[in-house]
Amino acid sequence: MGFCSLKRLRSALPIMKNRLVGGMECGGTKFICAVMDDTERIVDQVRFHTTSPEETLRQAITFFRQFVKNDSLEAVGIGSFGPIDNDPTSETFGRILATPKPGWSGVDVVGPLQRALGVRIAFDTDVNAAALGEFRWGASQGLDPSLYLTIGTGIGGGFIKDGKPLAGLVTPEMGHIRIPHDRERDPFPGACRFHGDCLEGLASGAAIQNRFHSDPTLVTDADPFWDLEAFYIALAVSNYVLTLSPKKIILGGGIMKREFLFTKIWEGVRDILNGYVSSRSLLAGIEEYIVPPKLEGRSGVLGAMALVRQNA
Amino acid sequence: MGFCSLKRLRSALPIMKNRLVGGMECGGTKFICAVMDDTERIVDQVRFHTTSPEETLRQAITFFRQFVKNDSLEAVGIGSFGPIDNDPTSETFGRILATPKPGWSGVDVVGPLQRALGVRIAFDTDVNAAALGEFRWGASQGLDPSLYLTIGTGIGGGFIKDGKPLAGLVTPEMGHIRIPHDRERDPFPGACRFHGDCLEGLASGAAIQNRFHSDPTLVTDADPFWDLEAFYIALAVSNYVLTLSPKKIILGGGIMKREFLFTKIWEGVRDILNGYVSSRSLLAGIEEYIVPPKLEGRSGVLGAMALVRQNA
Repeated sequence: MGFCSLKRLRSALPIMKNRLVGGMECGGTKFICAVMDDTERIVDQVRFHTTSPEETLRQAITFFRQFVKNDSLEAVGIGSFGPIDNDPTSETFGRILATPKPGWSGVDVVGPLQRALGVRIAFDTDVNAAALGEFRWGASQGLDPSLYLTIGTGIGGGFIKDGKPLAGLVTPEMGHIRIPHDRERDPFPGACRFHGDCLEGLASGAAIQNRFHSDPTLVTDADPFWDLEAFYIALAVSNYVLTLSPKKIILGGGIMKREFLFTKIWEGVRDILNGYVSSRSLLAGIEEYIVPPKLEGRSGVLGAMALVRQNA
Repeated sequence: MGFCSLKRLRSALPIMKNRLVGGMECGGTKFICAVMDDTERIVDQVRFHTTSPEETLRQAITFFRQFVKNDSLEAVGIGSFGPIDNDPTSETFGRILATPKPGWSGVDVVGPLQRALGVRIAFDTDVNAAALGEFRWGASQGLDPSLYLTIGTGIGGGFIKDGKPLAGLVTPEMGHIRIPHDRERDPFPGACRFHGDCLEGLASGAAIQNRFHSDPTLVTDADPFWDLEAFYIALAVSNYVLTLSPKKIILGGGIMKREFLFTKIWEGVRDILNGYVSSRSLLAGIEEYIVPPKLEGRSGVLGAMALVRQNA
């Protein structure tokens, strides 16, 4: 698999040879590592399965170390599955917190890389990295503020404002908002172990698995459930529109690979908002407003490199 | 009524005598105008009833004009009831849009002041002005990002990020988010003419008026309805916490004058989030996290002056 070339960074960077930055996307099933030069060319990349923390991080270090040898790797950005601690003032900064993934709770991701490579490390959530990747080079390029949602095993969102992911008290966890749950039409109680029928509890891949007692990919496109799924996503998207007012909304993640969901979501959002937000983007222009990612499987690793540029 | 003195602006401003800025809060029932010097002393202020647009704006102009005469009024900030057009690139910038308030739909607020006074005018929503006022001098002072909600006749929110109100595609309209509506416990269909049972449709002053067929102030504190009201507000606040992650949440507006609602809302938010957002602010510290405004009736007019400083 190769990376296509990318447009140059719009921000002026001093031209120096061999100024490299690394990016690492830590996923529950695979890691992707890549290195980019200052013309935004991908110099090298690798992907491998997520196994034990020791082995997986060792593979990452081995990959990045080749670029440290000639002193040209300046920094590495990391976008990780969570929950994570990305607060630099915290004692547990750089760690994965209590995660259902066996063996990974409490694992320090930043520490081993920093010690082995001796370079600056930026650390954020996978969804914030993906949001930033799409904002720099993908479907929301230059559109500030913009929102990236991932609807996969879990549901999460990254909101880019003034060129960087929104962070406040903590990192937003917008997959867990409450939306109307029509129990008559849908008696499923919800699968979130914290909230029951929050958005993630009703509409995530894990929730679908729980509803059907089978892998979400085995639910056929013809199943009437997808109307309900699209309606829940449309309710959440409408709430984000009203709260965040993004200029573009990207829906990524495994569930959104079913492209027919987009049409249902466009209709749902239009019905729910009912003309209240008077913007062309939400009326005739909705098909260009709520869109799939452009960078596909690479939003995260590219965004991880953008995390580093942002903090430079 | 007098304004108490305020702390000095933390941002360094060149010291010049008689550099004045004006602020105007346009409410549905009253206007407040004030003028502040560069030591943040309120030099003068006036309030009057909202009558016809011509007469009301004439009174405002008369007040501000005295400070133009000696060339010392530099700018006026306006925080207005809405909906308004605050997009400077729009043809209808500076106007109040379709409002239920008789005579005020389409009224140009900025134009007459700019022509009469010849100074720079900043224009935003009343809730954005109030949010900024509290952020500069009130309950959320220096806490970025922070959220101000008004729960009055309508419901609206202003989110301060990087020292200014969030704006994107349009100005957020977070009072209209959808929340779970338990129709068994609460058969009231909702009063929002766009969305029925959105937050504003269930919990605003207008909705209460519609439920009880009487003024909300006449509903006694003992009425069991207030549990429901607090629960709806808690659901919305929880969604905002998850989406925006503010460092402080201020609940203002006429409905929140009933102080006992705060206790119910604190309990509700804690129950709804159920420990998922692991921050002291949402557990033991919730009483200092979700708070009433500090500037009370003056958040808007003071914030209107901060709008001008921000854009300087």
